[in-house]
Amino acid sequence: MDTYEEKTLTSTEIYKGKIISLRIEEVELPNGKTAQRELIKHPGAVAILAITSDEKIVLVEQFRKALDRSLVEIPAGKIEPGEDPKTTAIRELEEETGYSASEFTYIQSFATSPGFADEIIHLYLARGLKKVENPAAGDDDEFINLLESTIVEAEEMMTSTKIYDAKTAFAILYAKKLLPN
Amino acid sequence: MDTYEEKTLTSTEIYKGKIISLRIEEVELPNGKTAQRELIKHPGAVAILAITSDEKIVLVEQFRKALDRSLVEIPAGKIEPGEDPKTTAIRELEEETGYSASEFTYIQSFATSPGFADEIIHLYLARGLKKVENPAAGDDDEFINLLESTIVEAEEMMTSTKIYDAKTAFAILYAKKLLPN
Repeated sequence: MDTYEEKTLTSTEIYKGKIISLRIEEVELPNGKTAQRELIKHPGAVAILAITSDEKIVLVEQFRKALDRSLVEIPAGKIEPGEDPKTTAIRELEEETGYSASEFTYIQSFATSPGFADEIIHLYLARGLKKVENPAAGDDDEFINLLESTIVEAEEMMTSTKIYDAKTAFAILYAKKLLPN
Repeated sequence: MDTYEEKTLTSTEIYKGKIISLRIEEVELPNGKTAQRELIKHPGAVAILAITSDEKIVLVEQFRKALDRSLVEIPAGKIEPGEDPKTTAIRELEEETGYSASEFTYIQSFATSPGFADEIIHLYLARGLKKVENPAAGDDDEFINLLESTIVEAEEMMTSTKIYDAKTAFAILYAKKLLPN
């Protein structure tokens, strides 16, 4: 199988923000022509499918300015520079939900928008949940509602689009294999 | 349940490109403080889980500059201004794979990166596939290898990270329900 690599000819940083940066690259295509790519750099993130002892999925509701609406999602958060993704996952689960987990298992990683962004999400399964007595506080610009739902309730939220993001949709399908009803 | 809306105070467009644009918004948080949001606008896209008469999944391999590697993905493409997503899906399936489908069923939509982007992907199931005699050509900066794989082969590609994006990962889990082997 051919590999259609695109060679970078020029790279220009347009914007460097707190979370994302944007650069424009001129690339050489396999046919010798050139094309322009608009590329977002993102530090990467983790997400946690956390399942309680009574087989409920831990979810958080928060306002997402990019979509100008609230979404119900699995707990997630950005990786700090140099941080191991599993450490991020343990930290974010505690900050967003107040839970610690005795079992933390890696499920899988995926790029969210490979057409324009390098964001990778690393997904973990957390079981053996216990409420932490004095949980670490989250970011001070995050306002979160905590929910715990059965797999059936989560599927209903997917149908009603309360759940409406790719990582959570994947996690609910995955949870369905673990929680057959 | 509280809704933690973020009111836009100022909105500044930093960049307007061919595919994405970037704006910075100053928002008012529920506690009266302000925060800055870095937001990407994207036209939205479709993706197609296309299954052949011998129960194989149609996949495309292409180079993704954002990740600087090739990925194997389900066929997908951006929605043109004013275009109905189903029309996009029919068009992209033909352009990327040379297939038309007698059955086109809506599966579900999801935001790919709600933390910073408004991109929505609409996922369709295509069955009753037939090769089109003179398929419409795709974008002239797209170089694509066509693959057809069993569900087992697709799962192996997820494990080896040849398949490594959220929409395809979701589609493979979904296909697993339809193709129990």
